[in-house]
Amino acid sequence: MSFGKVFIAASLDGFIARADGAIDWLLPFNAEGEDHGYDAFIAGVDGLVMGRATYETVLGFGDWPYAKPVVVMSRTLGAADVPQHLRQRVRITADAPADIVHALRAEGWRSAYVDGGEVIRSFLAEGLIGRITLTLVPILLGRGRPLFGAIGREVRLEREAVRPFRNGLVSLDYRVEHSEKAAGLAETKGN
Amino acid sequence: MSFGKVFIAASLDGFIARADGAIDWLLPFNAEGEDHGYDAFIAGVDGLVMGRATYETVLGFGDWPYAKPVVVMSRTLGAADVPQHLRQRVRITADAPADIVHALRAEGWRSAYVDGGEVIRSFLAEGLIGRITLTLVPILLGRGRPLFGAIGREVRLEREAVRPFRNGLVSLDYRVEHSEKAAGLAETKGN
Repeated sequence: MSFGKVFIAASLDGFIARADGAIDWLLPFNAEGEDHGYDAFIAGVDGLVMGRATYETVLGFGDWPYAKPVVVMSRTLGAADVPQHLRQRVRITADAPADIVHALRAEGWRSAYVDGGEVIRSFLAEGLIGRITLTLVPILLGRGRPLFGAIGREVRLEREAVRPFRNGLVSLDYRVEHSEKAAGLAETKGN
Repeated sequence: MSFGKVFIAASLDGFIARADGAIDWLLPFNAEGEDHGYDAFIAGVDGLVMGRATYETVLGFGDWPYAKPVVVMSRTLGAADVPQHLRQRVRITADAPADIVHALRAEGWRSAYVDGGEVIRSFLAEGLIGRITLTLVPILLGRGRPLFGAIGREVRLEREAVRPFRNGLVSLDYRVEHSEKAAGLAETKGN
């Protein structure tokens, strides 16, 4: 099974945030008692790998929402930038995606929630994503931060579950076909 | 009811063709005996409005596939560029989207199949699209011609039917919320 798993919401035109990072358009769809599959998803990963922008957005929420370990990809932040109360749970790395996966596998991780547009694209580009759960929000933002953009390679997918929600969201599960082989190699390398 | 209706397939990363216009990636999903809703859709429109690129792609297929009248938006083509055998069915216009809608309403059209990325975006930007049926193909192309791109305005949608197909396609129906008002105005103007 491939290492990286994506679980993300996007507008129908493929944006995950406004140009300034705002996700106000997403908040009206937070329905009480409906997690759109999030809890089951997070239960199935060993931790998270995210970019600096996503990390700082989450930090801004106040309460840290993740019980599992988080790896933040950044070339500008250092360990000292992590607030004291999060240092057991958050680490910063400047490593490349393949090296991160290698190191985390060596620690026993079998999969990670890969989050943030730029990090998702870099993992996709290197064949390190095995599953994508994309929740489409019924809006065209017209501009913003793209989920996929130009990742520079073609990725074949196999569609699995489709879950329409009453509030207009629809969640689409895909398995990445090609990265199974890449994941197999990575597992060999990691063991 | 708003005038323009979109019925289009896109890769999960939002491209409707490769950078050179090729749709080879789409063809394996043409299933015998399954039109993915096309016949019902085309039965519900009075004709088509498309861009020059789409027109030339369709011309290249050989057999002209449309029984209904087609309006081609182009600033470079003229009536003389339309092959003789299509002149009863195809006309070229350099008019702007709102003027086209006005003229077609005056002829009795109640709705049109609006096709081609650039034309869809220009109609969306002017609030002239009422419905979008987007069929998502299980592939990331990585680059190509975008469906939505930056249309420069926000469009709120209401999700209606969701139809997963056995070959991995999934068809999503949306009603455009905002353009109902614009359509009402256009109807008043047209009558």
